[in-house]
Amino acid sequence: MSSSPQSTSGNATTAPVLDLSADVVTLTAALCDIESVSLNEATVCDAIEAALAPLGHLTTTRIGNTLVARTDLGRSERVVLAGHIDTVPLTTEPANLPTQRRGEELWGRGTVDMKGGVAVQLKAALVAEPSRDLTFVFYEGEEIDSQYNGLLHIHQQRPELIEDADFAVLLEPTGSIVEGGCKGTLRAEVVTKGIAAHSARPWNGHNAIHDAAEVLARLVAYQPETVEVDGLEYREAMNAVGIAGGIAGNVIPDRCVVTVNYRYAPDKSEDDAAAVVHQLFSDFVVTIVDNAGGARPGLDRPAARAFVDALGVDVVAKQGWTDVARFSAMGVPAVNFGPGDPNLAHHDEERVPVDQLESAEAALLRWLA
Amino acid sequence: MSSSPQSTSGNATTAPVLDLSADVVTLTAALCDIESVSLNEATVCDAIEAALAPLGHLTTTRIGNTLVARTDLGRSERVVLAGHIDTVPLTTEPANLPTQRRGEELWGRGTVDMKGGVAVQLKAALVAEPSRDLTFVFYEGEEIDSQYNGLLHIHQQRPELIEDADFAVLLEPTGSIVEGGCKGTLRAEVVTKGIAAHSARPWNGHNAIHDAAEVLARLVAYQPETVEVDGLEYREAMNAVGIAGGIAGNVIPDRCVVTVNYRYAPDKSEDDAAAVVHQLFSDFVVTIVDNAGGARPGLDRPAARAFVDALGVDVVAKQGWTDVARFSAMGVPAVNFGPGDPNLAHHDEERVPVDQLESAEAALLRWLA
Repeated sequence: MSSSPQSTSGNATTAPVLDLSADVVTLTAALCDIESVSLNEATVCDAIEAALAPLGHLTTTRIGNTLVARTDLGRSERVVLAGHIDTVPLTTEPANLPTQRRGEELWGRGTVDMKGGVAVQLKAALVAEPSRDLTFVFYEGEEIDSQYNGLLHIHQQRPELIEDADFAVLLEPTGSIVEGGCKGTLRAEVVTKGIAAHSARPWNGHNAIHDAAEVLARLVAYQPETVEVDGLEYREAMNAVGIAGGIAGNVIPDRCVVTVNYRYAPDKSEDDAAAVVHQLFSDFVVTIVDNAGGARPGLDRPAARAFVDALGVDVVAKQGWTDVARFSAMGVPAVNFGPGDPNLAHHDEERVPVDQLESAEAALLRWLA
Repeated sequence: MSSSPQSTSGNATTAPVLDLSADVVTLTAALCDIESVSLNEATVCDAIEAALAPLGHLTTTRIGNTLVARTDLGRSERVVLAGHIDTVPLTTEPANLPTQRRGEELWGRGTVDMKGGVAVQLKAALVAEPSRDLTFVFYEGEEIDSQYNGLLHIHQQRPELIEDADFAVLLEPTGSIVEGGCKGTLRAEVVTKGIAAHSARPWNGHNAIHDAAEVLARLVAYQPETVEVDGLEYREAMNAVGIAGGIAGNVIPDRCVVTVNYRYAPDKSEDDAAAVVHQLFSDFVVTIVDNAGGARPGLDRPAARAFVDALGVDVVAKQGWTDVARFSAMGVPAVNFGPGDPNLAHHDEERVPVDQLESAEAALLRWLA
């Protein structure tokens, strides 16, 4: 617990205490000022747990430094509101913490990715009689290797905490639009095999890199689909992201590996996606290296529809793979919606407009009223 | 001087003394048994220098551990007989030295590459009245980086020792056929440049590996020439010998490098060869990485013709680049001719048939008579 929390309220404290009654901007600053670079989330998780403890309408479960807080009001719908509580490392000389209020922006590590979203979650947690049952998830280890991901830990250890939800909102920064679902991502190695020989006498061998010409030609010719799922358009993509071949400058190469990344719409299963790649390269040796399915946005569900209608903002397909796919894997469609410009996530000059924090909070409270 | 010379004549000596009157097989064994792995040629060079010193028809010049011995008989022709005196490292457990006579073969490091050829040179050096003037070259550092190559040192420091020759014979193992000249070799990097982007949104970037499809397609479609030079056929070749591209599994690659090796007939200069590659990839960024011209066989010259006629063996084009190109660079056409199977050079079971040593010696002496 190396964090040195500082309150922007002017009341410096030695133990990190979060005042949920403060406005959302103050609460965002307080959360950011409890430094919680990945693997150092204990203090901020303690602070969130302590802040929620007095709220009688919530039941909390802690797994490592991941906290789940649920209402149990017998509503006809249940929605997950989720956010990760870790950040990427701070800048140095100077560090981009503690936060600074500059005009109408709050500057500092985590303001965008994603303590602002967490602050909005916490403000929503104060609503004692929400219009639907809520499952709040505050999770660790999102910014690093997936083995540390708190959502994965819930999936592995306590999936029932998530699985009964109709819909999930991940409060990652989207610039205050709704990004629905996400594409899946598959990586495959397409290997050509040749016969090594001295390059002065190539007729004694067979050039594996030359055989890769056909692999690349198929990638160039490939026409990716754009697939509509629940009203959102997902643009698929099939790309070489790596190529490697060759032994020495005077040797005909006996092997060439093309690494292909297929980004596929969430109407396809992981197996569907693998079949597309195997089909495209049916006459080559293909190994699927990794494959993570996408997530449907679930905008055909009443809970999701109501959320989008209440917000009244633009809704687009999420193209990149995100943690919404972890909800999808637990049977729960999900969207991203949160304050902050995603292009400023991880940025040295990470900062969020105050009005985005306030409008995101207002939108959620309107929906829960 | 770490060598531990042993004589196969049965008369073990502490100082390495070469008896040039011994038969060529015994002389080969004696040369091999003076271990001379590259950078350790001093002892064997000393021994050769001492053995040639009593021969009044030779004038010697030493450069490092490279020895040049010349006749000066006023003949109308001058021919170089050259061989390197270093070897690749010995095997271990057991070492493949000292040499062993097994039936009709002599086994051990250097028997093929190329102390057998050096023994034939030394037997020829005994001829006091050769039919043409001779320049013997015994040189160091052939098996390692070219900066150590004794022929290169002559070229740099005393080119006049070579340049007055009409023709050169390099006694590298050829299985007792004549291999004429050699092809040149050029390496170039053909680079494609793209724009990096997240692979979930490739439309924001440009894939440099996909652009390399066209580079590979041209290599596949390229029809290499077979060029006749001085009656020998050189098969050209244009091959990718390396390819590398890609930053990470989720990034559209912004750069791909194809390393191309062009092996070209000795009718082309280095500049001619570079022009072929620049022309083939005129719309790409091309960098010539290295370029070593080939060597004409010189079979249109009387001295070369007489050599081939006297030997009465097959004559073929040398496809790989060899040190004959170093003679070519000094204006002297050259061929390879020597005892031993080149496929056994550097081999753990390196060995030469006794009759190849004897027939190579006999052929050279017939020609010099």
